[in-house]
Amino acid sequence: MALVIDIEDPGDPRVDDFRDLASADRRPDLPGRKGLVIAEGVVVVQRMLDSRFRPDALLGVARRYEQLAADLDGVEVPYYRVDAEVMARIVGFHLNRGVLAVARRPRELTVDEVLDGARTVAVLEGVNDHENLGSMFRNAAGLGAEAILFGDRCSDPLYRRSVRVSMGHVLRVPFARMNTWPDDLEVLRHKGFQIIALTPNPAAPTLATAMTGERVALLLGAEGPGLTEEAMRATDIRARIPMAPGTDSLNVATAAAMAFYERVRTAEGR
Amino acid sequence: MALVIDIEDPGDPRVDDFRDLASADRRPDLPGRKGLVIAEGVVVVQRMLDSRFRPDALLGVARRYEQLAADLDGVEVPYYRVDAEVMARIVGFHLNRGVLAVARRPRELTVDEVLDGARTVAVLEGVNDHENLGSMFRNAAGLGAEAILFGDRCSDPLYRRSVRVSMGHVLRVPFARMNTWPDDLEVLRHKGFQIIALTPNPAAPTLATAMTGERVALLLGAEGPGLTEEAMRATDIRARIPMAPGTDSLNVATAAAMAFYERVRTAEGR
Repeated sequence: MALVIDIEDPGDPRVDDFRDLASADRRPDLPGRKGLVIAEGVVVVQRMLDSRFRPDALLGVARRYEQLAADLDGVEVPYYRVDAEVMARIVGFHLNRGVLAVARRPRELTVDEVLDGARTVAVLEGVNDHENLGSMFRNAAGLGAEAILFGDRCSDPLYRRSVRVSMGHVLRVPFARMNTWPDDLEVLRHKGFQIIALTPNPAAPTLATAMTGERVALLLGAEGPGLTEEAMRATDIRARIPMAPGTDSLNVATAAAMAFYERVRTAEGR
Repeated sequence: MALVIDIEDPGDPRVDDFRDLASADRRPDLPGRKGLVIAEGVVVVQRMLDSRFRPDALLGVARRYEQLAADLDGVEVPYYRVDAEVMARIVGFHLNRGVLAVARRPRELTVDEVLDGARTVAVLEGVNDHENLGSMFRNAAGLGAEAILFGDRCSDPLYRRSVRVSMGHVLRVPFARMNTWPDDLEVLRHKGFQIIALTPNPAAPTLATAMTGERVALLLGAEGPGLTEEAMRATDIRARIPMAPGTDSLNVATAAAMAFYERVRTAEGR
C-alpha cells in the first residue's frame, strides 16, 4: 500500500517534483531539466502503475486515493495527500484532475526490442507537436499497432501534454529512437517489414490495396512539410488515403489511425 | 479589392471586433455576446472568403495582405493594416498568425438543406469539446462526408477554437441543428438514411459489414458518456470499430474519420 503522507504547506520540499507544472522554465517534465514523466488523473495514473514507468510518488486529494486504493496495493511509494487548494498551489493550476504521479525515465527501449513480434508499427519523421504525438499513441493502442519508432526531429513523447492526450498510452505502447536516419529503415526491411509512406498523390494506390505485407511499417511526416525526400526514397511503396479533392491532408495521428484501422479490418477479413 | 486602412492606435474603435480574443468575458466569439465568427491565418481566411460566411473586415500585417491579395479581389471590406506589435495588443496575444477576418453569423441552414444530395453525414449528441468539433469538420471535409447535424447538448461549432482546429472547414461543411431530439432522426430515416451508432460491444458487426446503406447517418456521442439510450433506440444498427481489447474508445472525431474512411473505401471498391 502506498504510504499516505499529509501535506498542508504548499512549499513543502517533499512535493518539489510536482511543482510549477505549467511554468515554461521550471516545469519538471522538460527533457533538458529533470525530465520527469507525469501522469494526470485516475486513468492515466492507473496506466502508469501498469507500465514499465514506476512512479516515485503520487500527489492527490483524499478521494482520488480511495479511487486508486486497489491499484496502489503493493506499491511502496508515498501518496502525498493534500486538499484541492494546496494541490492547486503546488502544481500551479486548478484543473489538475486531483491526482498526479511522477516517474523517472527508465532506460529507453531499443529498436529491436520494440519490433519483437510487432505486425504494425508507425515510424515518425519531424512530428514535433505534442498533442499529435499523444493522439498517435492513443490511436496505436486503440487500433492495435504495436510500436512507434522515432526518426529524425520528433518531439519528446513523454512531455506532460503528450502523456495526457495519449490517455497514458505513451507509457504502454513501446517506442524507440532510430539513431541513423533514414538508414536505420533498413533494419525494418531486414526484419521483413513492408515500408509504406502516405502520399496525397491521387495516382498512388490506396492504403487498402498497397498494405499487403505480413509486417507493415507506416512512415509518417509532419503536417505541412511531410516526409523528406531521403525518407521517401527509403520506402517500398507510397499509398494514399482516399480523400476529397481540394482539402488539406488529415492530421498525422488521424492518418495513422486510418492505416491502423485498415490493418485490423484486413486481419479480421471484413 | 479590400480597402486598406492603416491603424496605429491599438485602441482604435474600428478594430473593436478583433479585440481581446482570449479574454474569457469579453471575447467577441461568445454566442451569447457578439457571436462573431473569426478566421485566423491565411488558409482559414481564404476558406472564409470562399464560404457563405462573408467577412465584415480583416485585421492583419502588410505581408499577409500581399499573400491574400488575389483572394481579396472584389471583396469590398476594410483590411485594417497593422504592425505585429499593434496587432498583438489588439487581439491580446502574439501567436495570432498575422491575419484575422471577422464575420457575422449568417442564418443557420435547415436540416433539409444540408441533407440535400448528401450520402454520408454525422449526427452528434453531447459533443461539447470545441477541439473535437473542429477535428470532426476537418475529417468530414477530408474524407468527403457532406454534412454534420447537431442533436442535443453540443457546443457551438463556430467558436474560435473550433474554426481554427477545423482548418476553416466548419465554414464549408454544411451543418444544421435538429430541433426535436431524438425524434428528428425520423427525418433522416424518411429520407432513406441508414442510421448507425458506434458501440464498443465486441459482439456487434464491424463498420465495414454494417454500413450497407446508400445513404448513411453516423450517430456519435461524447467520449465517456456516449449516446443516450433514447438516441440508441432510434438507430437502425449498432456497429463497432475493430479495437484492441482493454483500451478506451477512440476520440470521437477519430471514430468518425474511421467511418467516413470506410464509406470512401467502399465507394471506391477497394
